[in-house]
Amino acid sequence: MRTSRLEAFSDAVLAIIITVMVLSLRVPPEHDFGSLIRTTGHGLATYLLSFLYIAIYWYHHHRLFHLVSRVSSGVLWANLLLLFCLSLLPFTTAWMAHTKLAHAPLFVYGLNLLVAAGATFVLQSMLIRQEGQDSALRRAIGRNLRGKLSPALYLAGMLSAVLIGPPGRVGPYIALGCYAAVAVMWVIPNDRMERAVREADNG
Amino acid sequence: MRTSRLEAFSDAVLAIIITVMVLSLRVPPEHDFGSLIRTTGHGLATYLLSFLYIAIYWYHHHRLFHLVSRVSSGVLWANLLLLFCLSLLPFTTAWMAHTKLAHAPLFVYGLNLLVAAGATFVLQSMLIRQEGQDSALRRAIGRNLRGKLSPALYLAGMLSAVLIGPPGRVGPYIALGCYAAVAVMWVIPNDRMERAVREADNG
Amino acid sequence: MRTSRLEAFSDAVLAIIITVMVLSLRVPPEHDFGSLIRTTGHGLATYLLSFLYIAIYWYHHHRLFHLVSRVSSGVLWANLLLLFCLSLLPFTTAWMAHTKLAHAPLFVYGLNLLVAAGATFVLQSMLIRQEGQDSALRRAIGRNLRGKLSPALYLAGMLSAVLIGPPGRVGPYIALGCYAAVAVMWVIPNDRMERAVREADNG
Amino acid sequence: MRTSRLEAFSDAVLAIIITVMVLSLRVPPEHDFGSLIRTTGHGLATYLLSFLYIAIYWYHHHRLFHLVSRVSSGVLWANLLLLFCLSLLPFTTAWMAHTKLAHAPLFVYGLNLLVAAGATFVLQSMLIRQEGQDSALRRAIGRNLRGKLSPALYLAGMLSAVLIGPPGRVGPYIALGCYAAVAVMWVIPNDRMERAVREADNG
Repeated sequence: MRTSRLEAFSDAVLAIIITVMVLSLRVPPEHDFGSLIRTTGHGLATYLLSFLYIAIYWYHHHRLFHLVSRVSSGVLWANLLLLFCLSLLPFTTAWMAHTKLAHAPLFVYGLNLLVAAGATFVLQSMLIRQEGQDSALRRAIGRNLRGKLSPALYLAGMLSAVLIGPPGRVGPYIALGCYAAVAVMWVIPNDRMERAVREADNG
Repeated sequence: MRTSRLEAFSDAVLAIIITVMVLSLRVPPEHDFGSLIRTTGHGLATYLLSFLYIAIYWYHHHRLFHLVSRVSSGVLWANLLLLFCLSLLPFTTAWMAHTKLAHAPLFVYGLNLLVAAGATFVLQSMLIRQEGQDSALRRAIGRNLRGKLSPALYLAGMLSAVLIGPPGRVGPYIALGCYAAVAVMWVIPNDRMERAVREADNG
Repeated sequence: MRTSRLEAFSDAVLAIIITVMVLSLRVPPEHDFGSLIRTTGHGLATYLLSFLYIAIYWYHHHRLFHLVSRVSSGVLWANLLLLFCLSLLPFTTAWMAHTKLAHAPLFVYGLNLLVAAGATFVLQSMLIRQEGQDSALRRAIGRNLRGKLSPALYLAGMLSAVLIGPPGRVGPYIALGCYAAVAVMWVIPNDRMERAVREADNG
Repeated sequence: MRTSRLEAFSDAVLAIIITVMVLSLRVPPEHDFGSLIRTTGHGLATYLLSFLYIAIYWYHHHRLFHLVSRVSSGVLWANLLLLFCLSLLPFTTAWMAHTKLAHAPLFVYGLNLLVAAGATFVLQSMLIRQEGQDSALRRAIGRNLRGKLSPALYLAGMLSAVLIGPPGRVGPYIALGCYAAVAVMWVIPNDRMERAVREADNG
């Protein structure tokens, strides 16, 4: 299968995920500013985080497939697994928002991100195996420090969501901070990848 | 009509179907892990199955149209019939999940899959008639053993959903097992089709 | 603006309209077959009709723009007006279904179709004015008998929805029949248009 | 990153935003015409306005990227910021409609438009910096009088939404009028931009 079709389908699914999430925002029944914060404050904050995650996945998904010309059957299913994990994000985001950052939903949200990172790892490994150890893709990915740090931060967030007790409700905010830190980390473009993509474009 | 437009429209519809299904997952009102399983356990399991089905339909839809260069008016309407059947899947999945695998919804879900298989058969027959009996498409489809086994398994699932009584609630799980078996069967790529697609790409 | 972008955007909007309609189907809270018919019977029937309408609009939209190479600002806004009218169809369909074919919703559904037909007429007129009276587009549209018959049938349906009294609830079914008749009429491809499209493709 | 992928993704997101808004329209539980106006009247009016806004953003987004050939990382994130702001429009529209144009929701709707205008300004500035002060893009944008007038009108609308008291409920209608005025202002195509796009197409 050509990558273009897989990319177009993945793009469409990601565009829908990123947009339907807004349908889970609770419209306040009251008419004043305070109710907006009370009813939808957590919803807006978590929507922003999940929007950022889907945007990042979209961006890095492109980078990855830009250096690949064909996809095997294994890559196809690994990609669908990743899309499945990401498609659950509107659900876990909604649970987290509706319970105003309760412990269990925050843990499950982190688990969702962790599983999506795992699916990305599987996808990336399959692409590398297909392209070879001396491919432009392999070199562009490099040591992938961020890819190794992310699961650790997800786990730290998940643990602090469940282990750190209710006084002051510090646990949930540490968890959210961990998840947000991973997102911010991935916003910075990977120079090695950018260079590889430019070279692939030029010839 | 060129196949590219039909494919793009079908892709978009399938991408939306696969993604809006997640909106039918019930967000638990409680804050604990147990409520997630109780409220959304059946929803997540059936969502996974339906996601797999739409992904499979997307994949085989591409294979089919890759070997065709133009579509007649009949093919167009057969394709829309297939999309209509598949667009009902979020609805039948939601009924099955919300009633926690009750007998009637499981039967209707199987019926939905059976009718979609029928629409696929009609679409395939029309494409073969258009392309001719000695076309690459005809050879790639071959004897289509899976296409003949699937309706039998759907029917077996539908019957066990309604006929096998409530003790231990074995019937619904046999039904789900049949439906899942068909999905797993179609995950395996068809070698003859893959070869035909590669040949079509190369020359 | 090139037609390709306008077509891609219109395709996406139509694909979303056709698919999100299924979210308005009411999932029965009960577990038996009877409740499916009682709760969702009208929903399924009206969904089928609206699906057919969107599919027809998608099909004829393509035919129209296939014979045009550029779009003026006026065409752009006429097209957006048409998309706006069609985007209301999920709403009017849901009202019609939830009230089980009450008089007012049936009238409003017909009005929605009538206004969409009006927007199509405006769009078509603008395209003809842009292309000229001796253009391939003008000849392909021809006398457009169906385009003249449709509003009459919509009006007949709307009137029978409100005027024919409740005994036996004949009025609503006559109205639905009128709307369905228009849809069936447009399923048949226009030979003159098909020939023009083939000629445009060939050179 | 090539602009084509960014444009395709933005198009998909805008197409979804413009269409899912219709899901927020409240389907009247009653069967008569009066209830349609009472339940959905404000919803329909505000949907029309927001539809117009998304259509305008889609149109001008295209114009902008038509004169650009590559996008930097900064442009990518500025574009995602704009999409995020616009994706909130279904939510703020729904709040405004459900509260029948209450003061706070009208203010927040104006704020949403203002922030989206700000994101557009950032995106435009980044594109100009990338393309240079003597680029076709820079000349096409010109003095951008409308871009300077819009925030003033948004602010006027927001202030009249909160400051002008309840007698006769004049405030909300002045606010809506301001927001509608901006939309109408942007419907008119920018001649300088159109000429630049035509020139870019021709050579």
